Amino acid sequence: MNAPSAPIVIVFHSGYGHTAKVAEAIAETSGAALLAINSEGNLPEGGWEQLAAAKLIVFGSPTYMGMASWQFKKFADASSKPWFGQAWKDKLFAGFTNSASIAGDKHSTMHYFITLAMQHSGLWVGSALMPANNKAASRDSVGFVTGMAGLMTATPSDASVDEMVPSDLAAARAFGERLKAVALR
Amino acid sequence: MNAPSAPIVIVFHSGYGHTAKVAEAIAETSGAALLAINSEGNLPEGGWEQLAAAKLIVFGSPTYMGMASWQFKKFADASSKPWFGQAWKDKLFAGFTNSASIAGDKHSTMHYFITLAMQHSGLWVGSALMPANNKAASRDSVGFVTGMAGLMTATPSDASVDEMVPSDLAAARAFGERLKAVALR
Amino acid sequence: MNAPSAPIVIVFHSGYGHTAKVAEAIAETSGAALLAINSEGNLPEGGWEQLAAAKLIVFGSPTYMGMASWQFKKFADASSKPWFGQAWKDKLFAGFTNSASIAGDKHSTMHYFITLAMQHSGLWVGSALMPANNKAASRDSVGFVTGMAGLMTATPSDASVDEMVPSDLAAARAFGERLKAVALR
Amino acid sequence: MNAPSAPIVIVFHSGYGHTAKVAEAIAETSGAALLAINSEGNLPEGGWEQLAAAKLIVFGSPTYMGMASWQFKKFADASSKPWFGQAWKDKLFAGFTNSASIAGDKHSTMHYFITLAMQHSGLWVGSALMPANNKAASRDSVGFVTGMAGLMTATPSDASVDEMVPSDLAAARAFGERLKAVALR
Repeated sequence: MNAPSAPIVIVFHSGYGHTAKVAEAIAETSGAALLAINSEGNLPEGGWEQLAAAKLIVFGSPTYMGMASWQFKKFADASSKPWFGQAWKDKLFAGFTNSASIAGDKHSTMHYFITLAMQHSGLWVGSALMPANNKAASRDSVGFVTGMAGLMTATPSDASVDEMVPSDLAAARAFGERLKAVALR
Repeated sequence: MNAPSAPIVIVFHSGYGHTAKVAEAIAETSGAALLAINSEGNLPEGGWEQLAAAKLIVFGSPTYMGMASWQFKKFADASSKPWFGQAWKDKLFAGFTNSASIAGDKHSTMHYFITLAMQHSGLWVGSALMPANNKAASRDSVGFVTGMAGLMTATPSDASVDEMVPSDLAAARAFGERLKAVALR
Repeated sequence: MNAPSAPIVIVFHSGYGHTAKVAEAIAETSGAALLAINSEGNLPEGGWEQLAAAKLIVFGSPTYMGMASWQFKKFADASSKPWFGQAWKDKLFAGFTNSASIAGDKHSTMHYFITLAMQHSGLWVGSALMPANNKAASRDSVGFVTGMAGLMTATPSDASVDEMVPSDLAAARAFGERLKAVALR
Repeated sequence: MNAPSAPIVIVFHSGYGHTAKVAEAIAETSGAALLAINSEGNLPEGGWEQLAAAKLIVFGSPTYMGMASWQFKKFADASSKPWFGQAWKDKLFAGFTNSASIAGDKHSTMHYFITLAMQHSGLWVGSALMPANNKAASRDSVGFVTGMAGLMTATPSDASVDEMVPSDLAAARAFGERLKAVALR
């Protein structure tokens, strides 16, 4: 397979489709290519080449048991190859995570993404989404759930992909615009 | 002043009264003594003695700019004295933080509290509050906002102390019961 | 297999044997049972029952690319089963990690271990090893490399298992004594 | 005072002069202006204006009790003013920390610096210093102590400013070169 070359590549694992839907919303506005880590923690053929060619790499994973999924971590461990020669040095990096809980431990996943990006000598780009946190704010407000280090979304444990919270998908689209603007500079 | 001796002592800083109200709710069910760090980052007379006598120390602070307030940190820095002789070794420790944002960076404050407790060679006790994260859950559910590493509450940026979210105060009382049960063992 | 019951169980993944050697040193003084996660991220038969019966669970993993290995994370993800019913509530937890770099990102792995333990509503026990950090201290000093949140060891990237640093193994034995003392209370 | 305008500004607190010496070494190669937070946690006159004009802001602090000093945190809390209007959006940010212990909790301070930079919607730049972690490496090797998320140095608890470890100051100069290169792009 000849992977399409894109300036922004979203490399993500999705357990049940929710994280994939966030990835799609980010791609919608950023023009990013989607690169899915499969259920065994592997990239499709051509995946590493896509990452090598990217200007901005976006990490995505659900937060399971307080951290990125093992499948994402298997990808991260495999990235020790480009790490060794610092092949991704000076790329831009960003990240997003989805979990059932509103707050929970998404910060833990996000700061791991940052640690990984720093090992690759990249520059980390946050969400630049200011919190919606006054009395007028509600679950429908963009910025109610997310943090600023990256995009955070929350999907109830028994919600289907079609039942994801619209404001979270709106935040994902705003995040995509942010990433596109930074990557174009 | 002869500080009252209590098995649980809550040492906290509150900028505008919200964190103090959470502290009071925890004290209500745990029987903890309240020890307020003032606006200059200092403890009242007898404060260090209260901490020395405690079985369980609870750290509390708002999350400001992604971390415990400077006043709390000034207290933490001053705790290098008991640290040097490991005077607090084997005490139990727990923590809580309040911020305007639902999620935000409260995890950052909580993990700093844990780092501090570990420097004092203590044992860290979490909230044991399972997340309320299915479709039926709402802002009124205990466990909607908090994490499990400690108690997390959220108060809109323009809410008065009287307007704090009742489910958060209920979570604080449940946290107090948890701490009492652990301290009694 | 009827797994032996022990009050302390060390559940760990080791990529090349170095982490296993640290686990053995901890077991030597703590009397812990060793429970190895295999290269596919799975426990041996009877492993979950051993953990269910333990009083203190010790997490161990190398730090790869800034975090516990994917095999450890696969175990952590699988622990969502005991998590769901909070079967490990009130157990004691501790952790250790080995990496090639002296400092590196071992703190990242350790704080993930804590996050995981808190999700299981456990109590976290640190190393209680004071740092050896004055001018007289050297790589041969116990406490030169480790942190206080858990045991940290460093093994040069090209060192065999037999070439591990003796002071690190001494720190591991001291950590085992600490864990035994806490578990006996 | 009319603060000199510089593309890189190092805003730092130093308790006993060691962190200041690291700041000077970074400035030596990066051409950065030095902006010292005083013992009361305040900036000199013109300090906020210097920061407003900077292209890259470098945070520096000792790690005390597992986190940046309270004086640094007082500065961070005061930065809620530029935060509110996102006046520092899209600036570059980096950080460094010094502590007595080799490893200790410097990662904790560094990740707080990152959290703060993300609240300001900046881009985080790491050290890009690969670890010196094979058998041939020693305390004299650049990259022996530092992490990749930022510059980390270690100074024995009883070492004077003149006794700081030369390889750490060499790492600081290499970090300064890295920052200059990134800021010039």
